[in-house]
Amino acid sequence: MWEFRSMMFWRAVFAEFFGTMFFVFFGMGAALRWTSGPYHVFHTALCFGFAAATFIQCIGHISGGHINPAVTFAYLVGSQMSLFRAFFYICAQLLLILLNMKKTHLGMATTVEVFLTMQLVVCVFAVTDERRNGRLGSAALSIGFSVTMAHLMGMYYTGAGMNPARSFAPAVLMRNFINHWVYWVGPMIGAAMGAILYDFMLFPRMRGLSERL
Amino acid sequence: MWEFRSMMFWRAVFAEFFGTMFFVFFGMGAALRWTSGPYHVFHTALCFGFAAATFIQCIGHISGGHINPAVTFAYLVGSQMSLFRAFFYICAQLLLILLNMKKTHLGMATTVEVFLTMQLVVCVFAVTDERRNGRLGSAALSIGFSVTMAHLMGMYYTGAGMNPARSFAPAVLMRNFINHWVYWVGPMIGAAMGAILYDFMLFPRMRGLSERL
Amino acid sequence: MWEFRSMMFWRAVFAEFFGTMFFVFFGMGAALRWTSGPYHVFHTALCFGFAAATFIQCIGHISGGHINPAVTFAYLVGSQMSLFRAFFYICAQLLLILLNMKKTHLGMATTVEVFLTMQLVVCVFAVTDERRNGRLGSAALSIGFSVTMAHLMGMYYTGAGMNPARSFAPAVLMRNFINHWVYWVGPMIGAAMGAILYDFMLFPRMRGLSERL
Amino acid sequence: MWEFRSMMFWRAVFAEFFGTMFFVFFGMGAALRWTSGPYHVFHTALCFGFAAATFIQCIGHISGGHINPAVTFAYLVGSQMSLFRAFFYICAQLLLILLNMKKTHLGMATTVEVFLTMQLVVCVFAVTDERRNGRLGSAALSIGFSVTMAHLMGMYYTGAGMNPARSFAPAVLMRNFINHWVYWVGPMIGAAMGAILYDFMLFPRMRGLSERL
Repeated sequence: MWEFRSMMFWRAVFAEFFGTMFFVFFGMGAALRWTSGPYHVFHTALCFGFAAATFIQCIGHISGGHINPAVTFAYLVGSQMSLFRAFFYICAQLLLILLNMKKTHLGMATTVEVFLTMQLVVCVFAVTDERRNGRLGSAALSIGFSVTMAHLMGMYYTGAGMNPARSFAPAVLMRNFINHWVYWVGPMIGAAMGAILYDFMLFPRMRGLSERL
Repeated sequence: MWEFRSMMFWRAVFAEFFGTMFFVFFGMGAALRWTSGPYHVFHTALCFGFAAATFIQCIGHISGGHINPAVTFAYLVGSQMSLFRAFFYICAQLLLILLNMKKTHLGMATTVEVFLTMQLVVCVFAVTDERRNGRLGSAALSIGFSVTMAHLMGMYYTGAGMNPARSFAPAVLMRNFINHWVYWVGPMIGAAMGAILYDFMLFPRMRGLSERL
Repeated sequence: MWEFRSMMFWRAVFAEFFGTMFFVFFGMGAALRWTSGPYHVFHTALCFGFAAATFIQCIGHISGGHINPAVTFAYLVGSQMSLFRAFFYICAQLLLILLNMKKTHLGMATTVEVFLTMQLVVCVFAVTDERRNGRLGSAALSIGFSVTMAHLMGMYYTGAGMNPARSFAPAVLMRNFINHWVYWVGPMIGAAMGAILYDFMLFPRMRGLSERL
Repeated sequence: MWEFRSMMFWRAVFAEFFGTMFFVFFGMGAALRWTSGPYHVFHTALCFGFAAATFIQCIGHISGGHINPAVTFAYLVGSQMSLFRAFFYICAQLLLILLNMKKTHLGMATTVEVFLTMQLVVCVFAVTDERRNGRLGSAALSIGFSVTMAHLMGMYYTGAGMNPARSFAPAVLMRNFINHWVYWVGPMIGAAMGAILYDFMLFPRMRGLSERL
């Protein structure tokens, strides 16, 4: 039970909360806008699969990347983790109900842009983190799948900007800058939130503020 | 012929049985619900490909991950394995006819949930097993493809829960808990079975029970 | 010009011939059965991409895996290869016209099964070859993409058996063994040819026949 | 501010310009030819994802591979890069408006072929560059995704030749060589430009001209 006192433990629990919430948010977000049919199955399958890949890349080195009570339970059965840790993991994974998905669906495009960019930035930071090692595979491919996943879910809501440069080009070509600020404000807030989330909370760098500046 | 006496050999034969059975189960499961047409081809192709990737990841370090009599035969021709081993591998691979697929199709959603979660847990355990090394690639991506594959096949039968957290969110939002227990009982049984299968049978850890507890 | 006398050089030229021929065979095979339309584009794109990934995995360590005169030319411009080698590579890459594709289209299912299994076996042997190192990535994923690619192309012609175990299960369930031999003879011939191609011709093992037996 | 004087810095800025321009060019190129609908979302999502994977592989070791002002901003917030560098990166990323996309749409097939082959060659050179190390993953798979991406975008404009050997086979079979030169001239110019871009500008080899010849 010594682990309750460590910062690492609580960071892992928080990472499970974050990972599961985002996994469900993106997967359900893609699934909800679809009618049934063969195409629906495929689209949802791909979105859930890429979401799992993305968020396990993001938090695998922090909490193990379960994002699933059944996987946590399996580790418990395989006696690879303590009962205490498993209990807190499962609680964190189920906390996602705090996320009232309906609100976001009716909400502003900016909110979606913030979330899309936030997951991208956390993924980029996680796969390019020189402090990690292990079975990371290709950093570029991980980021590519993160982009694909964000489009699979986000194109219904905002057209999936996530990248001001990408939204800037058509705006210039069409001379249409109405609501263009959304594609700058949303991603920039999301980027800052993602950077703070990963670099200060999930996997903080041990260095003073003076060193940072 | 010394190898018949080793535990490793029989574990490899069992792994081929398990891998081939699950490979065929998931591939055929996805194929059977489809009428012909271009989309059918694509969906089945992807499901078989991801199933091959998943189950070769799962048993590659135990048996070599053939899951195909033709591949076993090729290794024999390339004289990279003994005739005895090849014979037992091919027998194990063909044992899948024990699996009466029709039964499962008519069967309960719980059974499908058990199988979906079981393959996920074996995949997770296999790719995060610190005793392995070799050409594993990205652990996160392997798990992602395992999730995609399970959805490609399972969404027709149960909606592919596999993850109580994922099924919990819509149930809470909709205040609909009818049959919700399926998405808890199925995955939890599957998780326990997967953990026991991998951690005690396919690739057991050499440690006493006391150390486990 | 010393390299003309080495066995390695001719093996590389042969590998380019083999790789380009199979790349075009699979890509065009998938493309020809389709009418135009958005779906056509996607299917063909995926098949060409996975074919490139598969055959570059197969011959990357033998010839560099160009399978494209333009890539060979680029290496020449970057002065990373000699003019002589580039000339022979491009000749080998264009020799694929020897392959009379029309014949195969009208031909027997067995021929297609042979080719499907042959590429799978060469891919399996190449990615599990312990003599290689380098940027191989995941062996399991490479094989999975090889399976996907073979289905994307082969399902139109034979239903893409490639695996007797996979074809055995439905035959047993349906009690239908008419033409079932095709799914055993084709893959087994393909497996033997693939094993001989890789293990004796493309990247032979330096050991005596006695050691093999 | 010492970094302004280094060649490395300007090469990184140029790499960001190149990467972002090509990322937007391919993604928008695929998006523009589509009407709305579920299929549109999927096609565009995959093309953007593979484009991100490809161009991050291409320039990741030169500039970090941001290709997105939001990601650059995130690195700034995480204080992993200087304000000066971030400023120049974002300027380079937005310079893509120099690319008048409309022109290319009406333009010649040759131009598209040049661009398709150019990105392929830069990707091939980048993933097979023995001077790199890091989280590259599978070289073969990266090239495969680059081929897929080029087809997803290019098949609407030229049928996506990119490979003279691939275009040669149907031309021979059909005895149709009208406009066949496009599939030789375009890829060859693109290959030379890609080789020069990567090998002389983005990541030049430090050796004299005499050594090259």
